[in-house]
Amino acid sequence: MKVRELGEFALIDFIAGVLGRPVREDLVLGIGDDASAWRPQGLLEVGTIDAMVEGVHFTFEHTTWRDLGWKCLAINVSDIAAMGARPRFALVSLNLPGETEVESVGDLYRGMLELAGPSDVDICGGNVSSAPVVMVDVVVIGEAPGKLLERSTALPGELIAVTGYLGQAAAGLRMLKSGRTASEETSAALRRAHLRPHPRIAEGRVLVEEGVGAAIDVSDGLLGDLGHITRASGVGARLSASDLPVHPAVKAAFPGDSLALALSGGEDYELLFTASPDAVERVRKRVSCPVTVIGEVTRGDPGEVMVVGEDGNALQPGRFGWEHFRSP
Amino acid sequence: MKVRELGEFALIDFIAGVLGRPVREDLVLGIGDDASAWRPQGLLEVGTIDAMVEGVHFTFEHTTWRDLGWKCLAINVSDIAAMGARPRFALVSLNLPGETEVESVGDLYRGMLELAGPSDVDICGGNVSSAPVVMVDVVVIGEAPGKLLERSTALPGELIAVTGYLGQAAAGLRMLKSGRTASEETSAALRRAHLRPHPRIAEGRVLVEEGVGAAIDVSDGLLGDLGHITRASGVGARLSASDLPVHPAVKAAFPGDSLALALSGGEDYELLFTASPDAVERVRKRVSCPVTVIGEVTRGDPGEVMVVGEDGNALQPGRFGWEHFRSP
Repeated sequence: MKVRELGEFALIDFIAGVLGRPVREDLVLGIGDDASAWRPQGLLEVGTIDAMVEGVHFTFEHTTWRDLGWKCLAINVSDIAAMGARPRFALVSLNLPGETEVESVGDLYRGMLELAGPSDVDICGGNVSSAPVVMVDVVVIGEAPGKLLERSTALPGELIAVTGYLGQAAAGLRMLKSGRTASEETSAALRRAHLRPHPRIAEGRVLVEEGVGAAIDVSDGLLGDLGHITRASGVGARLSASDLPVHPAVKAAFPGDSLALALSGGEDYELLFTASPDAVERVRKRVSCPVTVIGEVTRGDPGEVMVVGEDGNALQPGRFGWEHFRSP
Repeated sequence: MKVRELGEFALIDFIAGVLGRPVREDLVLGIGDDASAWRPQGLLEVGTIDAMVEGVHFTFEHTTWRDLGWKCLAINVSDIAAMGARPRFALVSLNLPGETEVESVGDLYRGMLELAGPSDVDICGGNVSSAPVVMVDVVVIGEAPGKLLERSTALPGELIAVTGYLGQAAAGLRMLKSGRTASEETSAALRRAHLRPHPRIAEGRVLVEEGVGAAIDVSDGLLGDLGHITRASGVGARLSASDLPVHPAVKAAFPGDSLALALSGGEDYELLFTASPDAVERVRKRVSCPVTVIGEVTRGDPGEVMVVGEDGNALQPGRFGWEHFRSP
């Protein structure tokens, strides 16, 4: 069997099966969530790694080195934020062709620093190596005071909510690829959403402090990421299509596809979470971004995500999020 | 300027310059050593990342997936050992073509587990992604009770010593590539040395406990790695060629090249360190592998490494260790 045939998430399950149970008692959370966590003498530390590969996650046709630097750190900081932890340290493995300009590498790290500074993250190590294409692997280690936001703790009856807007990153990518035009403001907003996502660090801390149920960052797409929560928690979910906070620029640029982009686009790096109505209200009062209730956790088949349209009927989404290896 | 023109180590210096000074007070050791270390509430944690890229570090002509798994973990565990720390957790970023067999991925992780178990390491997370060739990035997080083995702390007058033997991994690679024959025992020993290096975890702990000066693991080659120590410490070094513990199988298989392989071969993952004669003796009594004095730290030009032959004259080594991007 090929990896391509298995798909990314089944491959991760397969790896978890090969590894078996953890041997250390101080491992708090291993494979299967946004990041891994361990307990060094009473304090929780959280670590995550994620890659950006040329030709797979980005091309230099649309992405500058500086954008690449920002984004390869941002996607990892977002995983830490989705655990309710504070990012602290980053290690960078930089694999690239020898023909690469040194200044490009400088720009890459400058892009990282633009996010690292305000996020209070030290890029404190790493490795460089030659490779046939540019591949950047970034590790971020974070800390949490004791509690984490996990994927497996959603309960039937909880509301499903999301920070910020949806669909903008995928719309930005589509705009960059197609060369399609929109107003200058709309185009800039969508490009920026794709190239420079802002991890929700402060919001993640608020979520864990207010005792929300489960949480994840929207990287694979709303449906894919909600599927991760429902499968891990053994619950179902019902979303209301008309309640989705589709970004206004997405509606302006792709009016016919805006719902599909919001459901399956991915890479918005907003926080998707489940919580009691009271907890959602408390969160809403404490964060500066919009918090929108988009559905509820149900006793449906574990992993099932139903999307209800304005007419009350279930939609048939074609494609559920982004998976490496698997073809649509 | 191209990365290829700058070379790996100057590129790392360049990156460190771009990053500037650390912003966090609890960062103990950042870029420039085998691993990075930080202090979570009084305990030292140590993190490192290293890559293995198909066609650069290995080919499947000579390396099985299981060997690859062992080695990509071993090279990182060795960095932790070279800090005098204990390895604890590993994160794996696995980038590979969709055509890869799932069972191959299983073998990769099984190879990691063969080393992870006896090393008390949990492979506790990671990421998978598609890529044009196989690229594995492994992070290892370790802990140390308070002191570390650094590169920058060698003092003139200290002896230079090394654990185990030298040259065997490079000889194994040469044997695999050339198809050259030797006795079955010799061939097997050399192949194993290249494919299955054993990190010196227990020895690293002894080194730090016995107060040695500086230490590093032999990954780039004896001369290259000693050059890292002498440059970081602002000292010179004199090696005695006839004292080098060249592996017997290297002498048997490549009698004419055994000194060159021991000096520049790399990937033996032995520990190279500087220490007072008393400290070397104390270390020797506590470890089960050979510990050989091979030279001394001098007040020579910072970074200078002189190799003295049996006739008392300095040798002219052609090539100093392995650097990515730079052509010989």
